[in-house]
Amino acid sequence: MKKIKVGVLGATGLVGQRICSMLVNHPWFEIADLTGKTSVGKIYGETVNWLIPSEIPDKILNIKIKSSNNDKLNSDILFSALPSSEAKQVEGKLAEKGHIIVSNASSHRMDVDVPLIVGEINSDHLKLIDSQKEKRGYKGFITTNPNCSTINLVLALKPIQDLLGINKIFVTTMQALSGAGYPGVSSMQIIDNVIPYIEGEEEKLETETQKILGKINQDKIKNATFPVAASCNRVNTVDGHLLSVYIETKIKMNLNDVIDAMTSFKGFPQDKKLPSAPLKPILYTQKKDRPQPRLDRLSGSVPGMSITVGRLRKGIDDKSLQLSVLGHNTIRGAAGTNILLGEILVANGMVNQ
Amino acid sequence: MKKIKVGVLGATGLVGQRICSMLVNHPWFEIADLTGKTSVGKIYGETVNWLIPSEIPDKILNIKIKSSNNDKLNSDILFSALPSSEAKQVEGKLAEKGHIIVSNASSHRMDVDVPLIVGEINSDHLKLIDSQKEKRGYKGFITTNPNCSTINLVLALKPIQDLLGINKIFVTTMQALSGAGYPGVSSMQIIDNVIPYIEGEEEKLETETQKILGKINQDKIKNATFPVAASCNRVNTVDGHLLSVYIETKIKMNLNDVIDAMTSFKGFPQDKKLPSAPLKPILYTQKKDRPQPRLDRLSGSVPGMSITVGRLRKGIDDKSLQLSVLGHNTIRGAAGTNILLGEILVANGMVNQ
Amino acid sequence: MKKIKVGVLGATGLVGQRICSMLVNHPWFEIADLTGKTSVGKIYGETVNWLIPSEIPDKILNIKIKSSNNDKLNSDILFSALPSSEAKQVEGKLAEKGHIIVSNASSHRMDVDVPLIVGEINSDHLKLIDSQKEKRGYKGFITTNPNCSTINLVLALKPIQDLLGINKIFVTTMQALSGAGYPGVSSMQIIDNVIPYIEGEEEKLETETQKILGKINQDKIKNATFPVAASCNRVNTVDGHLLSVYIETKIKMNLNDVIDAMTSFKGFPQDKKLPSAPLKPILYTQKKDRPQPRLDRLSGSVPGMSITVGRLRKGIDDKSLQLSVLGHNTIRGAAGTNILLGEILVANGMVNQ
Amino acid sequence: MKKIKVGVLGATGLVGQRICSMLVNHPWFEIADLTGKTSVGKIYGETVNWLIPSEIPDKILNIKIKSSNNDKLNSDILFSALPSSEAKQVEGKLAEKGHIIVSNASSHRMDVDVPLIVGEINSDHLKLIDSQKEKRGYKGFITTNPNCSTINLVLALKPIQDLLGINKIFVTTMQALSGAGYPGVSSMQIIDNVIPYIEGEEEKLETETQKILGKINQDKIKNATFPVAASCNRVNTVDGHLLSVYIETKIKMNLNDVIDAMTSFKGFPQDKKLPSAPLKPILYTQKKDRPQPRLDRLSGSVPGMSITVGRLRKGIDDKSLQLSVLGHNTIRGAAGTNILLGEILVANGMVNQ
Repeated sequence: MKKIKVGVLGATGLVGQRICSMLVNHPWFEIADLTGKTSVGKIYGETVNWLIPSEIPDKILNIKIKSSNNDKLNSDILFSALPSSEAKQVEGKLAEKGHIIVSNASSHRMDVDVPLIVGEINSDHLKLIDSQKEKRGYKGFITTNPNCSTINLVLALKPIQDLLGINKIFVTTMQALSGAGYPGVSSMQIIDNVIPYIEGEEEKLETETQKILGKINQDKIKNATFPVAASCNRVNTVDGHLLSVYIETKIKMNLNDVIDAMTSFKGFPQDKKLPSAPLKPILYTQKKDRPQPRLDRLSGSVPGMSITVGRLRKGIDDKSLQLSVLGHNTIRGAAGTNILLGEILVANGMVNQ
Repeated sequence: MKKIKVGVLGATGLVGQRICSMLVNHPWFEIADLTGKTSVGKIYGETVNWLIPSEIPDKILNIKIKSSNNDKLNSDILFSALPSSEAKQVEGKLAEKGHIIVSNASSHRMDVDVPLIVGEINSDHLKLIDSQKEKRGYKGFITTNPNCSTINLVLALKPIQDLLGINKIFVTTMQALSGAGYPGVSSMQIIDNVIPYIEGEEEKLETETQKILGKINQDKIKNATFPVAASCNRVNTVDGHLLSVYIETKIKMNLNDVIDAMTSFKGFPQDKKLPSAPLKPILYTQKKDRPQPRLDRLSGSVPGMSITVGRLRKGIDDKSLQLSVLGHNTIRGAAGTNILLGEILVANGMVNQ
Repeated sequence: MKKIKVGVLGATGLVGQRICSMLVNHPWFEIADLTGKTSVGKIYGETVNWLIPSEIPDKILNIKIKSSNNDKLNSDILFSALPSSEAKQVEGKLAEKGHIIVSNASSHRMDVDVPLIVGEINSDHLKLIDSQKEKRGYKGFITTNPNCSTINLVLALKPIQDLLGINKIFVTTMQALSGAGYPGVSSMQIIDNVIPYIEGEEEKLETETQKILGKINQDKIKNATFPVAASCNRVNTVDGHLLSVYIETKIKMNLNDVIDAMTSFKGFPQDKKLPSAPLKPILYTQKKDRPQPRLDRLSGSVPGMSITVGRLRKGIDDKSLQLSVLGHNTIRGAAGTNILLGEILVANGMVNQ
Repeated sequence: MKKIKVGVLGATGLVGQRICSMLVNHPWFEIADLTGKTSVGKIYGETVNWLIPSEIPDKILNIKIKSSNNDKLNSDILFSALPSSEAKQVEGKLAEKGHIIVSNASSHRMDVDVPLIVGEINSDHLKLIDSQKEKRGYKGFITTNPNCSTINLVLALKPIQDLLGINKIFVTTMQALSGAGYPGVSSMQIIDNVIPYIEGEEEKLETETQKILGKINQDKIKNATFPVAASCNRVNTVDGHLLSVYIETKIKMNLNDVIDAMTSFKGFPQDKKLPSAPLKPILYTQKKDRPQPRLDRLSGSVPGMSITVGRLRKGIDDKSLQLSVLGHNTIRGAAGTNILLGEILVANGMVNQ
């Protein structure tokens, strides 16, 4: 099989680095373009401030960085790790020219004609693309993945929504430093500290969750209607967002049924055995003091692509549930879900080969 | 005024150290006894592993450590920082002999005839002591202060309970390392990590809160009836418990009224101008990313005795409220509230002088 | 006594904040000017990102920030916490106009006619000022204090130099985050990490040490001639530089004599009982695992103004010495030594009152 | 090829876990015995507090833990991660019975007839075994690997010793938490802190270095004679010891020659292409702020088995050298060098198969 040419927009940032490191040995994709902003024209290996604990992969070491805007890109699929302000200006134009945009940026996530996808949950929302292309006159199209904490939350919610229905959700996040990119959070702010606020994060958790867990009806998403109240905190961890979640369900719950629903949960990526799909999207742990970011963030058959759920217990009554959810924020919460979405597009025949 | 002789049970532990450091310059109290377990007979300054960032106060440097059990103690009031298993064996016997026990240990907190006091909230619960003495035949008596995270939570809840009534509470804690004592949490467990579990902590938050916010009726406490769902996490901070709190209220709320209720909140310790009473038990911050443990834990007129409330906002409807609460866990959450309780007993004439 | 009007150049940075917080209750000085760069015209309390764990002092809360360059300053002494590039442009002009500059910036430290002072060591180097004024035609003058790690090193070296003479020094530093200012070091760089490099720091340790420990001869400093080999590392602490020091001495040493020399060490600031002078500039600890940044950085009679020396032991022969040195980098290592220098100028009659 | 039966003594500790995780997929070895002390009779997977960020390997999950002392062991080679006090009692007896002991414990390292081996440096010291067996009457024998910081130091020193000769060494270490095992260092000791002392570590660095870099002559090691002055510090990192090293050489040095000597350095394990031998034992980095523990500890062709050397520069004269050295303390500094030594024994025909 001939490999599909792909590019990474915003390849020097933290998420861009993760995308690159997951693409270099990808069985379907080969990197044809890397773009940056301040580093245009420079050699990737000489300009990137590589922050993943491993050497920069040889395959990208000597690639010359292009401009997302001005240079001709040779890729069919463009994985976008652009900052949202830049994504807003660039992604539409590139879709217009015929590129397929798979974006991690927030700028188009809530557009009514843009699918916001977590592969295991709502691959069927990709149907939006027809109306998107028609309406916008794009030769290509734009698809997006959610915000890092949202992805991890909705993966845990989906089997519960299916089993019990959901009335309300309260979630308090304890988010890792890599979520803020580089330089991101100053060390003076976070040593011996927690910051009880992350700009824009609570809104994303609330609105994106409803869209992803919504149902597609013809060419429209009918959002889920349960409210989500979120409190987002930055804690002193490198990678791995930990979420403390409280769920009020529509019907009475039985803990064993919930555990079964979680451990047997799978979706389109597992059915199609996509390269980046973990065998189990949700790992369930019975250990009383888990999941923990440092020990569990890379768990699973595809490291970092499974979330780990633990501390599952009854809430204040039979229609409520408490749990702790951990997911790797730059893999499952960004780069991995992003690439998985590219794989879904291929498996769906939406990419010309 | 002649100073009252006081002792510290369990004086070498982290909370014991804090109590000592707050007593050495106390205007009413003077230290007459320090007790320990493994260090009995040794000189305090030579055996304590002093972990507060200041030198060991001269006044206690050369005190010989006694046994809580076997030695004659000369103090009227005994501030207890004993581990709960030890407290269970010792505190009752000491009360029997005529000592007044002011305990930070959990062993007697939920006894129906033992007051569980946060000075600003429920000093009136001290009326329980008459029936306690009668029932138990103590010459002295036992009073207790709550668990560290509970103290900080209930201080924030009290003005809301008075203003709006409370239906339900969800709280996620991010608790500091000093709360686990020394050696407590291994560094290998917490570096680049969060532990989503603290033994016994969630139960304490749920039950103690209801007792403290209950009403005394003759010689019984009628507990508050709203349920509390807690998720407790250990994070990598030295001091300062941060709580993310969601409250469903009985009546519609107005944010400005809530802020007013908080900033004007005071109680018996403020009325009586007790030495350890902060001018404002609750500090309210408008800064969007506060309170933070490192920057706010020592705020207020008596460092560490005020909690800081921030991020106050509407929940999912008009009868719900979200906020972040920070309190110093070994000062307001333990040593300080403990000593303040001793001061209340004096101000109430319950200590023979 | 009428207070002397003083200003803080670069008042919003980390060192500027420390200087402000040490000046607000100063017995001799009163703050008349605060300058900034990006914040000119704004109110201090509204623009500063205050990072010291206490509230912004009332006295400076409402001061309007001036421009170091363009506004008229009313202060006799200007304490400068400017970045060195800015200091280079501004300090000379202000000295020309008649202000006395007491600078923490590196730009003029190594100028042959500018005194580089650590009060206890080389107050006599202030004699350079006469030739400075003459040569440069300043109405005022410029004095400087050394780099943060140098100050702590030279304080430990001075009694050894006097007692034994010094042939060579090897020093490895483990420096705190606050030394890099704000935002300074990214959290992604330092969590679970050490950075074995600090731009320009090793050179400063090597050259400034020789100047400070040099002798003044007429109107010239004859630098000390022993070489200093430094390796500078950034570690994950908030405040407090820890130095591991190896000294080869000119004559055989006796450990007790060294301890005596250290504990009895004092200088001009102690003789004159200056407000910011600690009773003992050097605290010596016998505890085998001290000094430690978190526990010892605020030790001494003026918190943060004493260094702590420990782990004193013989090196590989009788003419060598090993020790660990700790000093608070933004107090003794910057703001405190800076203000102490201002006090020395006053005590020396070098400030018109 | 039939696999050789091996066991792990002290398999539940941190180093024991690392040895297990490196053995489970080993091409030559298969685990036949795991021993413990408090966990004898229990199932490994149920009793171990697994602290490596990955799941416990299936192959060892259900092994029943034996007693090092009392149970019959079926292994030819016993890799020992015992605490030294236990090692002292047990290792000799097991060697007597015919087992080959490859020990990470310190108890026998400095015995004159016990080889202390870092594979790349002094495999020839294994000749000691003949005299050891003869003298002690062992059927098996004991070999050891050095202390974690020593291993990393001597690897960097060896090419310099060969090229230039060594007169003196000064080394300051910044050692990771995993070096102290579990629970090891309390979090309250190390957060926002550095501890300038590690029990026994400086002596080990000084004496072990001289033995390893010594020459074997007939059946005796003639130790290297240059003195080593060490200062050992514990810093807040999970894994990876960073060393700041100053070397005085016998002859004038040229930096490029040193770099060449380092990058071309290899030894017996590379010649024999042993499974755990990295292609390059020493990686040299030109980046000015490297090596860093978090980013470089797992570098190299066998993750964690190469040290990284950086910041190479002239010292105070032409016969001196400064550098920073980083090595993974539980892999190269313990488990990996330990297993590599087992491989050397096999390659040398010293293990009956």
